[in-house]
Order: sequence, then C-alpha cells, then structure tokens
Amino acid sequence: MAYNVAQKLIKDHLVSGEMTPGNEIGLKIDQTLTQDATGTMVMLELEAMKLDYAKTEASAQYVDHNIIQEDSKNPDDHLFLQSATRRFGLYFSRPGNGVSHPVHMQRLAKPGKTLLGSDSHTCANGCMGMLAMGAGGIDVAMAIAGEPFYVKMPKIWGVKLTGELPDWVSAKDVILELLRRHDVKGGVGKIIEYYGPGLKNLSAMDRHVIANMGAELGATGTVFPSDEEIKHFLKSQDREKDWVELVADDGATYDLNEEINLSEIEPLIAKPSSPGNVVPVKEIAGEDIYQSYIGSSANPGYRDFAVAAEMVKGKKIAKGISFDINPSARQMLTDLVKDGYIASLLTAGARLHQAGCNGCIGMGQAPATGRNSLRTTPRNFPGRSGTREDSVFLCSPETAAASALTGKITDPRTLDFDYPKVKEPDQPTVDVDLLDEPLSPEEAKKVELVKGPNIASIPETDALPDELEIPVLLKMGDNISTDEILAGGARVLPYRSNLPEISKFAFEIVDDTYYDRAMATRNNSGHAIVGGFNYGQGSSREHAALAPRYLGLRVALVKDFARIHWQNLVNFGVLPLTFSNPNDYDLLEKGDVIQLSDLRNQIQQGKELTVNLKGKDQKIKVTHALSERQIDIMLKGGLINWVRDRQK
Amino acid sequence: MAYNVAQKLIKDHLVSGEMTPGNEIGLKIDQTLTQDATGTMVMLELEAMKLDYAKTEASAQYVDHNIIQEDSKNPDDHLFLQSATRRFGLYFSRPGNGVSHPVHMQRLAKPGKTLLGSDSHTCANGCMGMLAMGAGGIDVAMAIAGEPFYVKMPKIWGVKLTGELPDWVSAKDVILELLRRHDVKGGVGKIIEYYGPGLKNLSAMDRHVIANMGAELGATGTVFPSDEEIKHFLKSQDREKDWVELVADDGATYDLNEEINLSEIEPLIAKPSSPGNVVPVKEIAGEDIYQSYIGSSANPGYRDFAVAAEMVKGKKIAKGISFDINPSARQMLTDLVKDGYIASLLTAGARLHQAGCNGCIGMGQAPATGRNSLRTTPRNFPGRSGTREDSVFLCSPETAAASALTGKITDPRTLDFDYPKVKEPDQPTVDVDLLDEPLSPEEAKKVELVKGPNIASIPETDALPDELEIPVLLKMGDNISTDEILAGGARVLPYRSNLPEISKFAFEIVDDTYYDRAMATRNNSGHAIVGGFNYGQGSSREHAALAPRYLGLRVALVKDFARIHWQNLVNFGVLPLTFSNPNDYDLLEKGDVIQLSDLRNQIQQGKELTVNLKGKDQKIKVTHALSERQIDIMLKGGLINWVRDRQK
Repeated sequence: MAYNVAQKLIKDHLVSGEMTPGNEIGLKIDQTLTQDATGTMVMLELEAMKLDYAKTEASAQYVDHNIIQEDSKNPDDHLFLQSATRRFGLYFSRPGNGVSHPVHMQRLAKPGKTLLGSDSHTCANGCMGMLAMGAGGIDVAMAIAGEPFYVKMPKIWGVKLTGELPDWVSAKDVILELLRRHDVKGGVGKIIEYYGPGLKNLSAMDRHVIANMGAELGATGTVFPSDEEIKHFLKSQDREKDWVELVADDGATYDLNEEINLSEIEPLIAKPSSPGNVVPVKEIAGEDIYQSYIGSSANPGYRDFAVAAEMVKGKKIAKGISFDINPSARQMLTDLVKDGYIASLLTAGARLHQAGCNGCIGMGQAPATGRNSLRTTPRNFPGRSGTREDSVFLCSPETAAASALTGKITDPRTLDFDYPKVKEPDQPTVDVDLLDEPLSPEEAKKVELVKGPNIASIPETDALPDELEIPVLLKMGDNISTDEILAGGARVLPYRSNLPEISKFAFEIVDDTYYDRAMATRNNSGHAIVGGFNYGQGSSREHAALAPRYLGLRVALVKDFARIHWQNLVNFGVLPLTFSNPNDYDLLEKGDVIQLSDLRNQIQQGKELTVNLKGKDQKIKVTHALSERQIDIMLKGGLINWVRDRQK
Repeated sequence: MAYNVAQKLIKDHLVSGEMTPGNEIGLKIDQTLTQDATGTMVMLELEAMKLDYAKTEASAQYVDHNIIQEDSKNPDDHLFLQSATRRFGLYFSRPGNGVSHPVHMQRLAKPGKTLLGSDSHTCANGCMGMLAMGAGGIDVAMAIAGEPFYVKMPKIWGVKLTGELPDWVSAKDVILELLRRHDVKGGVGKIIEYYGPGLKNLSAMDRHVIANMGAELGATGTVFPSDEEIKHFLKSQDREKDWVELVADDGATYDLNEEINLSEIEPLIAKPSSPGNVVPVKEIAGEDIYQSYIGSSANPGYRDFAVAAEMVKGKKIAKGISFDINPSARQMLTDLVKDGYIASLLTAGARLHQAGCNGCIGMGQAPATGRNSLRTTPRNFPGRSGTREDSVFLCSPETAAASALTGKITDPRTLDFDYPKVKEPDQPTVDVDLLDEPLSPEEAKKVELVKGPNIASIPETDALPDELEIPVLLKMGDNISTDEILAGGARVLPYRSNLPEISKFAFEIVDDTYYDRAMATRNNSGHAIVGGFNYGQGSSREHAALAPRYLGLRVALVKDFARIHWQNLVNFGVLPLTFSNPNDYDLLEKGDVIQLSDLRNQIQQGKELTVNLKGKDQKIKVTHALSERQIDIMLKGGLINWVRDRQK
C-alpha cells in the first residue's frame, strides 16, 4: 500500500487503535515541547507523578510567554522551570532565547518523529516532516512520562502546491489563502499535508509559517515532507545527521484534496477579528494604521525580518506609526544584527523588542483603543492584543513593512521600488548558550525543585473511597462554563502555579461562600455539586477541575457534561455522573447529603449506579460514561496517581 | 564679585528673592521636560489652564516609562500626549526613542539655560552647564505657562576633582564615592558643583552619570561647567551652535567644599536597599548573583554599553545569569548595533530590551524573589525593581559585566584580561525621527486633544465662595498619610489621567462611604474634613489634593499639616486651616455643619478666621498660613484658575 507522509508518521508511532478516520488511536510521542504559561503546571504534575526521568527522546521547556517581569512571579516561575527541567531530564530554553517553535525547529526537531506540545502552535514543526500536535498540559505530562497520546484518527487533507510565489507575496499569504477558502473550522479533524512541485520554492522557514497557522484552521496537525530543503536546513544548523528523508510513496492518496497555484496568490490580509476573515490587501488599501508589527511564530524567519529591513532601508516610516520588531529567536537576532538588517530597521524608526512571544499573546505592544494594528502574528481574536476594543489585521511582513512606510494599509505591489530578494545565510549563527542540555539521570536525581513563594506542589489526592456520604454544596442551572467554575484573566491566572491560592476563586461567581464551605469538607470525605445541561462548557483550562478537586469535590452530578471538562474531571479524579432520569435533578437541593455505597465495585460492574438521598428516603439512578482505562484512573484517584503507579 | 557656575545660572534667571541660602527665590525656566508617568496630568493641567502655547524656549514630552503595552491604557496615553504636545507647542519623543535624560542631552540641552522636569533625575542635564531641577507636575505646568519656579536658594557645594580614573573604574564609581561619604541626605538644600583638573578626563556622558545621581544625595541640582568637552559633545550632535562657554570666575568660592581624587577611587557598589549603602566591591566579592543589568539614565552612555560588550566579547556569561541590556536611547542603540557591540553582547548571552526606562522603574526585568540583582541604575529602594523581596545592588557597567561573566559579585580588577578602552564615535548617529518638533502656534491652535476612554479632562473648579455652610464628612486622627487619602499602587495609579475615576478611591481606607457622601455634596456647596497632627504626610502625589477637591472638598481643618500636602491643597483650591487652639478639635464631630462668613474678606484681612458650628451655638478660631500670592490663588479657586487668568 502507498502511504502519504502523515500516514507513515502515524503508522510508525501507532500503539493502539485502527487508522480509520474518527477512530481513537494511541501514538507514541518522541518529543515534547512546553512553554512557560502552560509548563509550570506540567512540571508540577511531573512532580506529583513522582516521575524519575523523562521517557521521551527529547523534551524541551521554553520560556517565551511570560518574559516581562513586572514583579517576582515570572522570574520565580523561570527558576522553578529551570530546576524542574534539571530534575526531570529536560532541555531548558532560557528567557530571551526566543519563541519555542522556531527554536525547537532549529535545535531539536527531527524528521520522522512525533512532537506533542502544550501550545496550540506546536503544529509549526510539522514543517520538518514531523507529526507535531498541540495538546493540554496533562497530556504532555503523560507523554513525558512515556504514555501514549490518544487522538481520533484524522482525515489526511492533501494540498498540492504548484507554481511559484510572485514578487511581494510570501508564505504567510499561502496560509491566508487556505483560511480565505476554508475559514477557521476548515481543518477540524484533519491533518493538512502539503506536497507537489511548488514545495521546492518554499524554504524550511516558509513551511514553518504555513504549518504554524494550521492551528487557525483547527487542524490536528500540518505535515510537510522531509526533503532536500530540510536536509539543507538541518545542515545549516550543524545537524545534518538528524536528517532522514520522509516523502509520500508513489501513488499515495489523500482523504481530501486541494490545490493551490502559488503563482496566482496575491497579498492577503485577515481583517478583525478572525484569522478566517481574509480579503486581498488591495480591497482595504488606504485605511490608516497605528501600528505595524513584525515577528511571532507565524513569521519567525530570518527572511521575514530581512525583507522588511530591506524594504525600509534608507527610508523612514510614516510619522506616528509604532513599528514594532519582535525577534523570534536570539541566534537569528544575532545574524540580523551582524548582517545590518537591525540597523536598517532602527534607522527607519523601528522599536526593537526582546526576543519572545511578546505582543502576539498580549504581553506588550497592545495597540491604542480602536486603532488599526497590522501584525504578522497568527491570531487576531478580539482582545488578544491586550486592548479590549482592538482592531488587529494579520498579514505578511511585506504588507506590514509597506504599510509602515505609508502609514496606511498598503498592497506592497504598489510601492515604487523593486522587490528585495533576501538570501538566508548559508552558515547562520548556531547559539546553544541559552538552551541548557538535560542532566544525566544520576545528576538529575540530586536536583531540588526551586519554588518561589507563588509556586506550590500539587497536593496528593486519595483513591476513590468505597463509601461516600457527602453534602451537595452547590446546585446550579444549565450551561455553567469553566469561567464560572474558575475565572481566567489577570486577577486569577497569575496563580496558575499555586493550586491552594487559585482555588480561592473556585465558583466565586456562582456562590462566594463555596470556598469556605468546601474547605471545611476537604479533610473529611469531601462534597458534591449538582448541575444542569452542558455543564463545564467553554475554555479547556484544567484548573476548573483541579481547583474544586483540591477543595474536596468528589462527585459532579449533572444533566450532561461539556466534553473537555468531563475529561478533565476524570483526569483529576472527580467522578462525573449524569442523572439517568434528568427529572431527578429536581429531587436534589443544596445541603442534601448523598450516599454512594460499594462504589468501587459499582463503577466496575456497570454504567448505572444508585445514589441514596440521606434523610429523604429516596434513591435515584445515575450513570457514568467511563472507559475501562478511565475506571482504572478513577479508582486510583486520578491520572497523576495512575501514572505514578505505572512509574514504579 | 567672582561667581561659580551655579551662581551664574541662578543670577541670570533670578526673577525674585535674594540669593542668600535658605531664602525663597523665583527662577525663570527656559526648558522643561516631562515623562509619560507624570506628563499626562501636566498636559491635562495645561488644558485646564487654557494655555495657548508654551512660553518656554523648549519643552519636551518624553515617553519612556510606560512603554510596555499590556492593554490600551499606555498606548492611549501615548496618543493623548502626542496630541497635547501638538496642541501646546512641545516636542514629543515617541515611545521607543529612549530615556528622557540622555535624549534631552543629545537633542535639546543648552549650556547656560534652566531646565525644570517632572522627573527626579532631571538634574542629569546639569552635566551640560545647565541648572536642571526635578519638580512636581504642576510646577512644570506652571513653567510651561511662563511662570517662575520658586525654590529655596541652595548652598553651593563645590566638589573639586583631581587625578584620573584608574582602569576598571568609571564615572558611576565617582558618584558612589560621594554617596559613600555623605549618604542619601548629604545633598539636601545644596547644588553640587564639580570643578577642577579632574574634569578634563570625564566625558559629557560621564558627567551625566555623576549629575544624574545627585538626586540620590537629595541635592537640588548638580552643575558642571560648559567647557571644551561640552562643545565637542554638542558638535558631535550637530549642535555646535548651541554651545556657550560657562565656567566659574577666577576666585569663585563655594558655601561648602569637598575634594575627590579620581586616581584613588576603586570599584564601588551600593548594597540593598539604599543608594547610600556603599562599600568597595572587593568587600562583598563572591556572592552569587541572579541578574546583571546594564542601562538606565544613571549609565546611559555609548561607552557604558560598549565597555561591557568588549568585556564579554568572545566569552560567555555564567550559566543561569539573566544579563539584561536596556539601551537608553535609540540613536545610540543604532551606533552600538553598527559598531558590533550589540552582536558581542548577544553572542555572550545577553537579553536585549527595548530602549527606555524599563526595569529601572519596575517595568520589566524584575528579579526573582530574594536573588541578587546587580544594576547600573540609580536606585535600589526596597521593591522598586517590582519584586517585593528584592536584593538590588548598584554598580558600574564594569562591575556588572565582570559579575555576569563569573556569576558572582566580582571586582573587575580581578579579571584576567586587560581593561578595554572604548572610544565614543566621533560622528555618532543623529536621529530625530522619533522626536517630533513643535507645531507653529497657528497650526497648534487647530489640534484637538485625543483622549482614549481612560483619559478625562480636569473639571473646572469655582472660585472661593464668600459664604460656606458645609458638612464635616470625616473626622480623622493624627498622621493621616497621602496613601490613606488616595492610595498608590497598581490598583489605583492606572487611573492617573482620569480624575473622576481615581476619585473613587479617595479616603477609601479611612471610610469607604466617603466617596458617595462626598459626591452628594459636589454640586452643592461642598464639604469639609477634620484631621489631627501631621495631616497629609508621605508621598507628594498631587492626586491626594485633586481627587477630594473634585469631590467637593473646600476646607481641610486640622491640627497641623505636612508641608507638601499643604502646598498641594492650596494649589488645587482647598482652603487649609488649622485650629488656633488644637483642643477645639474635640468640639467637632463627623456630621457637624460648619459656617464661614465673609470668607473672601476674612482671609485677606488676617491670619485668623472664625468658624461657626451650626446648631451648636459655638464659634471657634482657625488660622491660615497663606502668603499673599497664595491668597490670590485661593480666591480664584486654585493655581489652574489663577494661571488661566494670567494667560488672558
């Protein structure tokens, strides 16, 4: 049988399941990537699992999100992450070293491997002939501990590239073209695989741009073949030995097919406030802008900065424009400095920022209220820039630089000078100083975790008891979101590494007496909550399960669950039950005490359990939807305990 | 008579008073400087004064403090400031252009002139043969409106410099030596004037370093002569025409005398948490560090970065050290890039930040809890770094770079290589692109102020009524601080440009019903408050007077006032009265209504007034301490109204 690249990667890593689209498969994970915003909890999970040493081939922790240090919380996190990487055998990319995706590509990515990352743009490294996927923090923790990653077998969507990009058009316009055609849900349940004769005109970093924003199509991953260009890239990074060829077999087919003629693409731009809101730049040319912003994992390449620098060289940006340059990797910044591009940008009027994610994730460079900001970043969701009433456009470096020069949205083809051709350096700087190598297992054992005052270990949780007699602390209606369970935002999220502290915000919006009442049950047998339909909708944040669990939540009994929160409850050992008869919801009140007997046996015997309402002389039927693996997890008190037992 | 430089500057600008130390003098102000943290309120004051056009020779508004843009507030402030400078005829230094003090020195400073700035390090430009002083926001607003600045005639403290700095010792060590000798109050009531043969070995930027930290000695100002070195500096900035010679007359004397032999200075360091806590570096060498930080107005020069770059060139900083480079001015950064120094720093492992104040004022680069941070900044007060439990040391770039290499506090003389000699470029980059020139008066008239949603004009205030019958809303005890009147901190200060919003926090700590009760009096005849001894101690922030005034406060009746808050109350039209007999404090209660009749006449007739306690059949005597000028200000309802009338 003839396989495409995605199928080869999956086949080589399949540990369970059939490769039929929609079917759950388990995949061996070779590499992981965590960033600091999600990584602190991953490291605390590894600690709670009592992991001895990473079981992956390479796992790297990057510090790129929280590198503005306005108080001790971020630098304390950095030191904690550094100590955790030393303890568990991970790479540590220090603050200032750059954005995870390009740095991983330069230093660690290997064709033929799988990469799981707790960052939605992890798919960017699909440019290297890898199967690279974003996932939740605990999924990545599990992968580091050697567990497979479970995902539904995606459809493989072949996108044939032909032709060659015209002047003033670059890789960003290619992915914007796909978003123009298919919008932000067009890739859901799919891996996008690029192939065809057009590939030879796209550098490895161009492919990174395209793979990165597969996330904006909702795709499970993006895959490029590992060809001579990837060999050339690895050679330039002194890593030629890491190259293997990985291309589709002759005659390989795809579940879905698409074609893009690169020669026909024109400069495109995504209007506020969705990456799918794409139009040709010429359609909105002339609108005033406030900011032009170059950088991020969606345009991280040397050429992305160099082409902008050549365009503004010897010229001046328009009066009043904030021209923000956000280098994506330190070793690339060094080359851009040495090769004179940074001087050209500065002389034209640029503001040069530290290497990192920066404004792409709302950490600085927020635009003024209602003013147009042109960015080479991947996302323009409302408020993501940090400004509530923002107006962010996504475009190529060419369009951003052209618009910086004129002060208005400008199709770069209308400029009165020639398209500068930029060549990547044949021997770029290779700088590993800020990427600390893992310690040996022997050295790692000796390392103590360094915890600042805002970092707290995840407390131990106990196994599921056989008998429960617990009060119902909350009775809620339908559509309770994870934001109501545990709010996000600047008031709460700084405590992301401190479960006892962040738990103080649990259900605060629903009932601000919950915390005190729940704490009182924490050291007894715990408590339950009752909810309606669609319980736990919204953000996937794990803290919405972790925090109530920390406060003693044992049972969530609702009409039905939103999928991801249900999974999170299972992962953290809260028993999710639904009313067999939704009308029984009416029989329960806040303050009631529920009893579950012979519980460990009951959940293993069948899907339906009996709950006794103490003092009401009433019994109701409830249902669980746990798989066999999940029953085992639940009996042990959650995934952390379950993995810890497997580590022994 | 033979005059020293400081006396010449004062004599040339004297508009009132005698030049006897301690006597109040009025000085004509030629130039002003505002930064964004203080500048928004200054611009709102200019608006409220209905200023037509700046009356100074040059006034510049810099954006250097709040250049991290995590939401719309900072960028909205930037646009407001830009529009205000266009409206009022000021220079505007855009975000990213650099720190006010070095940029002002490069572009606008002129020997022989006075400079008043709403930043305590304004004294830095004393290096240019100027009388440069820091002041409050409204003082600077007054100066822009053409009013004199009033200050007590300082003593002139002559510091004779002899000898030449040894290798590894630089200007920072000179001012640390003065701090070592005299601590942080050693300069209070004094202008420090440097002279002597040692001067010829100190460049203009070296003198800037020394002048800048005169603020740390509490000095009114620091003065250097304008000599051939200043001529050379101005020539390098294409401003030779701005040079005039200004040196002390032969035989000039000083009120106080000091001598520093530069040859005898060794590397010094200020330990946590005071700039006066100075010891030789060798005394504490070997202590582990977490961070080495180069930049700020206290070491802003090309040579400060270049010497550090040469020291680390071809080497690597110690593992785990955060080596933060904070360029002070964009045009200088351009040269440092072109001349290869930035590449050396990056290759050694540095983190390169945007040009601006940054971590020096707690905007980023905060150290981890309790870890040692070595900084070339001017201040290490507890918590100023942003980290509550910080441990910040102040030192030269040589000591900071040496310590970055070893990972420990290191006397640079102990390094095993030669001291790199760095030469300033003869023709440095002159870049005025991000410094917008003032509009002409005709163009300025047409400009509308641009106010984001968080910027509000200062509401009009009325003149002092002749009859007052107002309730006492608060009765407080002794030592009420301005923090209790209006808190500082991250919760409150973001509203610094929005008086209606910030007023919601007024007296919140004392009585959280005050705001509602005060608002109810605002459109009637207002209200009074009663306090004890030392009322209004602490921070000088003007908002502590402005906010209660906005809410209707007309009379503050207390046992006695802290000096600066008393002045602020007068400036904003609140009548400050003290009990003639402090025991009368006991006669008044919260809720009482006080009556003042024939008030306008009474305050002009004498120092004592009569207050009737309505319904209590009691009269008490109270006293005001207003000067004639202040009585006039009070009658008009405050300084803004007073100046507005003078603008007509």
